[in-house]
Amino acid sequence: MSKAQKIILLGGTGYVGQAFQRLLTVSGVEFQNVSRSEVDYTRVEQLSSLLAAARPDFLINCAGYTGKPNVDACELHKPETLMGNSVLPGIIRQACEENSVVWGHVSSGCIYTGRRADGGGFIETDEPNFCFRRPPCSFYSGSKALGEEVLADADRCYLWRLRIPFSEVNSPRNYLTKVMTYQKLLEAENSMSQLDEFVRACWETMALRVPFGIYNVTQPGSVTTSEVCKLITDSGVCKKDFQFFANEDEFMQIAAKTPRSNCVMDSGKLLATGIKMTPVVEAMERALKHWKSLA
Amino acid sequence: MSKAQKIILLGGTGYVGQAFQRLLTVSGVEFQNVSRSEVDYTRVEQLSSLLAAARPDFLINCAGYTGKPNVDACELHKPETLMGNSVLPGIIRQACEENSVVWGHVSSGCIYTGRRADGGGFIETDEPNFCFRRPPCSFYSGSKALGEEVLADADRCYLWRLRIPFSEVNSPRNYLTKVMTYQKLLEAENSMSQLDEFVRACWETMALRVPFGIYNVTQPGSVTTSEVCKLITDSGVCKKDFQFFANEDEFMQIAAKTPRSNCVMDSGKLLATGIKMTPVVEAMERALKHWKSLA
Repeated sequence: MSKAQKIILLGGTGYVGQAFQRLLTVSGVEFQNVSRSEVDYTRVEQLSSLLAAARPDFLINCAGYTGKPNVDACELHKPETLMGNSVLPGIIRQACEENSVVWGHVSSGCIYTGRRADGGGFIETDEPNFCFRRPPCSFYSGSKALGEEVLADADRCYLWRLRIPFSEVNSPRNYLTKVMTYQKLLEAENSMSQLDEFVRACWETMALRVPFGIYNVTQPGSVTTSEVCKLITDSGVCKKDFQFFANEDEFMQIAAKTPRSNCVMDSGKLLATGIKMTPVVEAMERALKHWKSLA
Repeated sequence: MSKAQKIILLGGTGYVGQAFQRLLTVSGVEFQNVSRSEVDYTRVEQLSSLLAAARPDFLINCAGYTGKPNVDACELHKPETLMGNSVLPGIIRQACEENSVVWGHVSSGCIYTGRRADGGGFIETDEPNFCFRRPPCSFYSGSKALGEEVLADADRCYLWRLRIPFSEVNSPRNYLTKVMTYQKLLEAENSMSQLDEFVRACWETMALRVPFGIYNVTQPGSVTTSEVCKLITDSGVCKKDFQFFANEDEFMQIAAKTPRSNCVMDSGKLLATGIKMTPVVEAMERALKHWKSLA
């Protein structure tokens, strides 16, 4: 990677944003993590002025509204959810286009449910099927799909679809931590993204200047919840007797306010650019092998 | 009406907002028309500070994004459309709730298409059927339905559904002007709102403090496009030979980027409060009888 590049990072304090910060720091890439208290980047004039002054090579947007502790919170904070996930991408797009800045946006695979009709994982050109236009969906998924619509014909923009991040570091946002701490689990099959590989792959799409557009940035393959439990048990990280909901109805009645996306993605488009992602089971075994808690 | 009341008006320079200004002025009600250049009411802190200082009895929100010259423009301005119609209502709600201000929001009947399955007009508790969750829809209709979702459990809030405004004053926003100036028309049946009766009825829901919630503020009854043409011809206002599209497909191919809502609303809930609206044909005849162009 060239070290002469300069990056503007939005949302750098979040779970994904921190991973970007670590990658850029390790890579020796100059970057500015912009906080909303410095520059209110939800205002197109303010963001555009920043870009005009800073003249960055790229902008990376990790800002968004995910809901804490989970997407159920988005049902209670609809304006914030729409603002962060549907409107903000359009504001960033406008500011970047005004300043001819190439940029990337952290999108999500949560706009799908299940698999393609032909049994494969969803590809980038498949219409979202878990969104406002294809209900039922969570408000979060609906807002993320609207964000993709807002960017549908954006010029010089990457949309990086993240899906269920995990890593070797214990964290409430880490899927492996969630599986180990939830009282009961829902059996489902999903594609997932190893957090550090995700941000590296996103960065490489920019650095290598692969064609603009949407990329499913997920590990090849998929895993079920019970397979993940077995990996955890086999690794020795946690010896818990994992409990499962009988079915999705019981999960919805007891644990959730809004349906969850569970889906299989196809990351073939990304892999075809030459950017590598470790198969999901191997990546998960590696995370568990190096499992750690930070202070 | 009491003259001791004080109103904050948002979006007072728009077509509906100007009608509110005329009504409040004629009624001798003290009001402050807030422009975004004075107070950026898309920021909850700024709006909340204004309300804390001004201590209004009511807030009336006529601000929104309708697209000019018509809703097709919303397809090209999705972030602005979502911001104005879906996010802004939530911001106003928060500021009003923080300051215990009763408020009203100009919503729209455009979130429906057709009639109820039982043949009646749509009532306030009917789920929208022309919105993101029930596609196809226009981006405008989708955004207005999300705005209603955002206000679904709001405490002390009126949602006033406007539908195709018309009046006796020639204006590009007046449905009668549109019918007289469009090259070709689409035959459809609709409920409509006489602009001055609409704002009066909205005001009365507040002044009389009828129960909070959604009200279809439309004239009783419905009219078809060809019936409106006949009313225009009979009135002598315009002697044009009105041309019609063969069907909706031709309309969509030639004249529109996005489908239009055509629907029949039931205004019985409003009428049951004692607030009166003139039947649509009578209101339209009256508008045509007094037809005028302002300088």
